[in-house]
Amino acid sequence: MAKEIIAVDLGGTQIRAARLDQALTLLQRENTLTRAEQGPEFVINRIKTYIRKVMPKRQADILGIGISAPGPLNPLSGVMIAPPNLPGWLDIPLRDMIAAEFGLPVYLGNDANVAALAEACKGAAQGCRHVVYFTVSTGIGSGVISDGKLLLGHAGLAAELGHIPIVMESGQVSTVEPEAAGPAIAGRLKAAIQAGAKSSALDLVRGDLNRIDAKTVGLAAAAGDELAIECLAYAGRILGLGIVCALLAFNPEIIVLGGGVTKTGDLLLRPMKEAIHRHILNDSFTADLRIELAALGDDVALVGAAALAATDGGNVDISELDRRF
Amino acid sequence: MAKEIIAVDLGGTQIRAARLDQALTLLQRENTLTRAEQGPEFVINRIKTYIRKVMPKRQADILGIGISAPGPLNPLSGVMIAPPNLPGWLDIPLRDMIAAEFGLPVYLGNDANVAALAEACKGAAQGCRHVVYFTVSTGIGSGVISDGKLLLGHAGLAAELGHIPIVMESGQVSTVEPEAAGPAIAGRLKAAIQAGAKSSALDLVRGDLNRIDAKTVGLAAAAGDELAIECLAYAGRILGLGIVCALLAFNPEIIVLGGGVTKTGDLLLRPMKEAIHRHILNDSFTADLRIELAALGDDVALVGAAALAATDGGNVDISELDRRF
Repeated sequence: MAKEIIAVDLGGTQIRAARLDQALTLLQRENTLTRAEQGPEFVINRIKTYIRKVMPKRQADILGIGISAPGPLNPLSGVMIAPPNLPGWLDIPLRDMIAAEFGLPVYLGNDANVAALAEACKGAAQGCRHVVYFTVSTGIGSGVISDGKLLLGHAGLAAELGHIPIVMESGQVSTVEPEAAGPAIAGRLKAAIQAGAKSSALDLVRGDLNRIDAKTVGLAAAAGDELAIECLAYAGRILGLGIVCALLAFNPEIIVLGGGVTKTGDLLLRPMKEAIHRHILNDSFTADLRIELAALGDDVALVGAAALAATDGGNVDISELDRRF
Repeated sequence: MAKEIIAVDLGGTQIRAARLDQALTLLQRENTLTRAEQGPEFVINRIKTYIRKVMPKRQADILGIGISAPGPLNPLSGVMIAPPNLPGWLDIPLRDMIAAEFGLPVYLGNDANVAALAEACKGAAQGCRHVVYFTVSTGIGSGVISDGKLLLGHAGLAAELGHIPIVMESGQVSTVEPEAAGPAIAGRLKAAIQAGAKSSALDLVRGDLNRIDAKTVGLAAAAGDELAIECLAYAGRILGLGIVCALLAFNPEIIVLGGGVTKTGDLLLRPMKEAIHRHILNDSFTADLRIELAALGDDVALVGAAALAATDGGNVDISELDRRF
């Protein structure tokens, strides 16, 4: 009989649990607030409770449990190291704790890697074997599917492309994330306004500078505000440099872009693509390259966590998924 | 019966051909000058002649022919695209030409990828499954073994880490190779001397500025010349930035450094390692990282070309090599 999979999406705000079938279709889903401020024991009990909510009567019908969680974490040992948005979590062996509770195989993956797997199995990169995924929101995460398999590296740390060093014009070395993620985009506009520049973004937040976020910048830019447009373009150019590194390293057939900031659209993506074409070694890296927005929306972590379990933690080629059940 | 492998090392100066056994041990080797100025037809005939010299009487005993060649080339189609040091070569289907002549499977790989495979199978990275190899000489090439397999990417272009963009202090974007390869090191010293700086390197070439190469810089630096030391340190720092990108992308267990420039030793490698530690995301990427010089010397291309054939062009896990024969 075809088995089913339990998927957990552990985030700083919400916990979601779901049951999926072998085609990674959602059959049942439940969600609740994480209440991270209550500490790890509370949150872990909540995870167990919500796994039980989606568990079928015959637990033997379940192939395994996949968990998407915020990094840093070690996918090989199943240990959460020190996630910034889960206070009090330090070296917690979440995988083994859940496995001990349910007696099922459990797989733990960082949210960006899991999202990459989801988009490759069932999203924008379906059918592709060489995929680089970036998510741009409050941080910049990334995940890589290399020749049909999730890339983990020697210690499970591979594909941290948001932290690629970028030397700034000042000569200082920064990285992609603090220059191009949402807070950087908002911070750049705020700094310019504080230095005396004019921007219609301030009207959108009724003059309260502190309320400007990346979304505000996007709205102001869409309305033609020159300063906001330049802030997005700057982030796009930096992101483009990061993508050039990804193209040179992995030669993927597709770049998938997720995360709230990428919804800004062409005002971010056009400067990004220009930077890619300006700085890539030659056209053969971009000739048949697709650059697509992520397709799975809020379900990406659940679909990816299920895919993680279905591929034995990324060890099975995604093209074999259909055959495995 | 155990089969043997034919390996070809096509370089701008020399052609080498060899026969190796299943353990990638050299049994016979022949070499000649490439005479690239005679054009492709001449060189290809020479390759065929030298393959015949190492071919056993019973051609059925040969598993296949592996060829290491200068890029750019397409390892998937077996076509040499436009190697700068082989004038007149443009889109030449070398793999199929050699296959048609000998009726054997032929595999073509770029020299840096092939060297990475060699070091992973039989050199400094033997026993490792996650390897990044850099060769620093007149250019900077690289190759990656990811989870036991040669990384090729969608179109065979992966692992071109020498071309990673580096924004300079001026704000201009350069890449690793033109800042850190041999000619860049020599060029930096020459430019400083032309601008009036003093360096003992000039004495080593009897005052003939044009004769200064990276080796001269290395000798002057070893003798304590401050300017030469700084030129090497600068290249080391840039190389370190490139290696940081490689660590973030692939999380390898070992970095192998080949090519003449790396023989300079600590005057290059110490600033390189300092840059790695300064710019890497966190210590977990470097905690158990090994950084080693390449071990195979001049034989690297022949051993790697044989390994390329033994792994069906990089499609077989290197840990299966012993079992395959």
